[in-house]
Amino acid sequence: MSSSATVVQAAEAQSAVDALRSATDMLWLVVAGALVFFMQAGFALLESGMSRAKNAVNVIMKNYCDMCFGAVAYWAIGFGLMFGANPSGWLGLDHFAPHAAPESDYGMLFFQMMFAATAATIVSGALAERTRFGAYIAGSVVITALIYPVFGAWAWGSLFGGEGWLKAMGFIDFAGSTVVHSVGGWSALAAVMIAGPRLGRFGPNGEVRQIRGHNLSAVALGGFILWLGWFGFNGGSTTAVTVGIGKIVLNTHMAGAAGAIGALCLLSLLRRPILITAAVNGSIAGLVAITAGCHVMEPMYALLTGFVAGGFSVMAADWLESRRIDDVVGAVSVHAVGGVWGTLAAGLFKDDAMFDLRQLGVQALGCVVAFAWAFGLGLALYWLLARTIGLRASTLDEQRGLDYTEHAEIGYPEFQQDLLQRDRP
Amino acid sequence: MSSSATVVQAAEAQSAVDALRSATDMLWLVVAGALVFFMQAGFALLESGMSRAKNAVNVIMKNYCDMCFGAVAYWAIGFGLMFGANPSGWLGLDHFAPHAAPESDYGMLFFQMMFAATAATIVSGALAERTRFGAYIAGSVVITALIYPVFGAWAWGSLFGGEGWLKAMGFIDFAGSTVVHSVGGWSALAAVMIAGPRLGRFGPNGEVRQIRGHNLSAVALGGFILWLGWFGFNGGSTTAVTVGIGKIVLNTHMAGAAGAIGALCLLSLLRRPILITAAVNGSIAGLVAITAGCHVMEPMYALLTGFVAGGFSVMAADWLESRRIDDVVGAVSVHAVGGVWGTLAAGLFKDDAMFDLRQLGVQALGCVVAFAWAFGLGLALYWLLARTIGLRASTLDEQRGLDYTEHAEIGYPEFQQDLLQRDRP
Amino acid sequence: MSSSATVVQAAEAQSAVDALRSATDMLWLVVAGALVFFMQAGFALLESGMSRAKNAVNVIMKNYCDMCFGAVAYWAIGFGLMFGANPSGWLGLDHFAPHAAPESDYGMLFFQMMFAATAATIVSGALAERTRFGAYIAGSVVITALIYPVFGAWAWGSLFGGEGWLKAMGFIDFAGSTVVHSVGGWSALAAVMIAGPRLGRFGPNGEVRQIRGHNLSAVALGGFILWLGWFGFNGGSTTAVTVGIGKIVLNTHMAGAAGAIGALCLLSLLRRPILITAAVNGSIAGLVAITAGCHVMEPMYALLTGFVAGGFSVMAADWLESRRIDDVVGAVSVHAVGGVWGTLAAGLFKDDAMFDLRQLGVQALGCVVAFAWAFGLGLALYWLLARTIGLRASTLDEQRGLDYTEHAEIGYPEFQQDLLQRDRP
Repeated sequence: MSSSATVVQAAEAQSAVDALRSATDMLWLVVAGALVFFMQAGFALLESGMSRAKNAVNVIMKNYCDMCFGAVAYWAIGFGLMFGANPSGWLGLDHFAPHAAPESDYGMLFFQMMFAATAATIVSGALAERTRFGAYIAGSVVITALIYPVFGAWAWGSLFGGEGWLKAMGFIDFAGSTVVHSVGGWSALAAVMIAGPRLGRFGPNGEVRQIRGHNLSAVALGGFILWLGWFGFNGGSTTAVTVGIGKIVLNTHMAGAAGAIGALCLLSLLRRPILITAAVNGSIAGLVAITAGCHVMEPMYALLTGFVAGGFSVMAADWLESRRIDDVVGAVSVHAVGGVWGTLAAGLFKDDAMFDLRQLGVQALGCVVAFAWAFGLGLALYWLLARTIGLRASTLDEQRGLDYTEHAEIGYPEFQQDLLQRDRP
Repeated sequence: MSSSATVVQAAEAQSAVDALRSATDMLWLVVAGALVFFMQAGFALLESGMSRAKNAVNVIMKNYCDMCFGAVAYWAIGFGLMFGANPSGWLGLDHFAPHAAPESDYGMLFFQMMFAATAATIVSGALAERTRFGAYIAGSVVITALIYPVFGAWAWGSLFGGEGWLKAMGFIDFAGSTVVHSVGGWSALAAVMIAGPRLGRFGPNGEVRQIRGHNLSAVALGGFILWLGWFGFNGGSTTAVTVGIGKIVLNTHMAGAAGAIGALCLLSLLRRPILITAAVNGSIAGLVAITAGCHVMEPMYALLTGFVAGGFSVMAADWLESRRIDDVVGAVSVHAVGGVWGTLAAGLFKDDAMFDLRQLGVQALGCVVAFAWAFGLGLALYWLLARTIGLRASTLDEQRGLDYTEHAEIGYPEFQQDLLQRDRP
Repeated sequence: MSSSATVVQAAEAQSAVDALRSATDMLWLVVAGALVFFMQAGFALLESGMSRAKNAVNVIMKNYCDMCFGAVAYWAIGFGLMFGANPSGWLGLDHFAPHAAPESDYGMLFFQMMFAATAATIVSGALAERTRFGAYIAGSVVITALIYPVFGAWAWGSLFGGEGWLKAMGFIDFAGSTVVHSVGGWSALAAVMIAGPRLGRFGPNGEVRQIRGHNLSAVALGGFILWLGWFGFNGGSTTAVTVGIGKIVLNTHMAGAAGAIGALCLLSLLRRPILITAAVNGSIAGLVAITAGCHVMEPMYALLTGFVAGGFSVMAADWLESRRIDDVVGAVSVHAVGGVWGTLAAGLFKDDAMFDLRQLGVQALGCVVAFAWAFGLGLALYWLLARTIGLRASTLDEQRGLDYTEHAEIGYPEFQQDLLQRDRP
């Protein structure tokens, strides 16, 4: 064989590798995106299980539909705002409603669409059992199309030129402790403050009354599914195949495990019952917290990050309750508080916990900005919804249950005979 | 290093890429096949949730067992008929019960086996709550071993030489809107027409009576799982890693989302309640519809395809009900009607909606042939079963519930005390 | 281009392939590990569904928490014992609490951690409805940190130098019919013998009384999830991408299908009802059995292996019941007996059933050693727990249900009004 033929052959081998690498990167993005998609089922089960049976359909329907409407909104607007060319560092300006785009863009849009759905759906659990369906969907479309992607543009943008201003400062938030979870969590806090607590959640003198969820098996299954999805959430955020995903998913798993342990240890110390709801929320808090720094921490620090997040999830839920804030599923304590802690932990524990004050400052700045943006806009959004189309269900509807009044469907009709026997008004 | 050593080195690199590509293709086939497998759980939950509690075990058991018996039947017969060497274009003639075959064949058999199970299981939901277990399983084995693979040989055959006659005409059905879903849906229509409606479904003067499903949370979880599985169903149908799977799964997701939106929009327009069952069925109809053309459409058209399919799923279910056809879960309106629409949509919207009359004609021909084949053979099959071993459960058994009479197991014994207190006859 | 440039180019292509192969191997390990993780949800649902509603939370909580505590224990101790450098063939001596390790080690630890959780969690179902939470968790930590990894070191060790003594003899147990399932199953047998049967399970004269599970839909969903996870369990045990995973997952699927068929055929022959619990357990037994030899068998033998395992699962459960051994979910008959049969079947059927007496002897030896080790240490472990912190719940607690007494949470409060109305003591 001549020398020039060999040159061709070597170049062909190289380009075959490059093509295979691109295809394999896409495979990973698709598999990881599918796992993140499945988290929606996890949220639906967890939130519905923590609500009463009379609202089971309504809670799930909110999850199902925020994903559907959110997919269209993110394709049309959100993706462009977040990842479009971003010369100012503040906002993406193209790639709206992508059409005839390169196939690799479509894969990225698929993956990012699932993240947007996660941010939006965090609100649904906090707001469960008392809000009107239409208003909830309208709010979640605004989060998907605007609140989430604009903050995302600052921290993660851009794929198509320009760099978000927080990213440019060196803000570390690998898969979105802040970008996804805190933004969703602070929006949820705004929403529950505007909507107010459920009827009967607090007594006339402010005393706390528990409202028990109707299906704790569903809560646990939801927790398992969320945990599973997190391997795609964190692992897929490499957006490329690399040996490093092994470390990422190991840290993810250990932080989830440590989160449950942290919550249960705190409950045991306080001599309170070891609740399955606390274990599940503790592990989700651990998963939220490791999301920012799973790629730069050693497993030992992942354990510590998750453990502390689990403890925080119990304390923060207690504190919110003491403030008469009714977050049905603990979304704020898990996603917002867990996200803040995890973002700080990424700064504290990266590179075997080499202390770096500037990095910590940037991490704190990102957390503060996320709070100001998401909580501020969330207050405005839900206040507007409350004043216009109406956010809160009527007292009668809330008492009857939203399944009956909003959907004319009951979750378990053979086991809820009292609801069935009423005629629809 | 000498020139000949370089030649060897370049050739080795090329063959290493080829080997890695084959292995990665197999990885994708296996992951996608596993996702398609999981759709069986989705069907089981959705169908059981839409049935009454007294038939919950029976419905799931049918899904579980049609998959088990179907796996053996497809390995023994179906795969060979569908993908074996097909010189005539009508029927595969080898690769029955593969033994000592190349490992890549086994991967393909695994993937295709899951598709066959999907086609067969579509019938189970339509036929729920009134048919005998043995007859149902016999029918589903015939679908898996014969009805599905023979049509498949026309549209998709062959892997081992020869080309199916529909495929040779240029019929587009990427992952099986027609091959899998319409064939399953038309078989289901035949089955429910032979079996007749459930007791009490229609009044003595033909008035429609709703029979409510016992667990709408399970319906929603089933919908989420089906949706998840569809990423493997459509994405895996490349049977090879390629950057194009990004576009395929994005289209899949957007069609599913738009399907739910389409169904809910139509219900809102008609001033009817926005049902979770309609949302789930709408999105499945959207997923069914995008299955044919997800690889050749732009996302905008995937949205449109799904949206229309969702609307159709509501209208078709109404029409079937008005004809006194009792399809418990809406399998015909979702899979058969969605499949026809999607197959036509693939012709209409491919390549940015370049109008191509010949292509549309081929698409329509494929739909008609699928109807004639699957509905015709389905009528013969279920008529034979009804006349021989008996298809319909006895009136007493149907009243008591098939869990009790066919399996001596009750789904939720502590919550169905009335059923438990009876002795088994 | 000069010849030396070509040499460099060919070498670069080769090293690019090698890097991509390592990354793709990791991708497969992570995806497969995630699927194995999800088996925990399958176990939780299956075991909880087969228990009474008053223990639903407790059963799931045991699964959730043994995974959490087990993850930490396996990271700290188990992984090193099992896969650390093993000069003697009996015990790994390094890689405890890996820190600053190569990223590929972290991927392997992630994958193996999921296997350890599987072995440990097998005990939870057998022991359901009567044991104290703390004692159960303590026992499962010992299994994860000691009993499972030490046997694993003999059969699978090591990754870092040295070879386990059973492995050196040629013992075939690809993904752990013996290493994972029999070890878990024999530990479970020891545990139930120490704990004794549930109150009322056997009458005063030893007569058998059925205690029905509260949710058979959950049992079936658990079965589907376990089956799904098994594709990762067996397929991932290649720990590298290869075309061979196609054969492995096909065999896995066919053995699962044949297991259900085997169990139902035996029940039909005995003129007993065809139970969904028997179908699910039969398929799990088939999956357990194929785990040892899925890489060396032809599909026909996978079918046979699964079919026989399904029959055995029915017979073994009957026999245990006749010995007054109360295994709530059939863990011993499925995992221990299925594991022994599968390990022998791997010797019988490998390489198209070439008879090899020496191989069979080694397989039998491995089974016997696993029994002696896991059952022996299991007896000691649970005896110690019973004598120290107490294994068995009090009679009053068992009657009230462990959800109420151990967790102060009830699984389905709106449907269990009798439990709710009691005050917590």
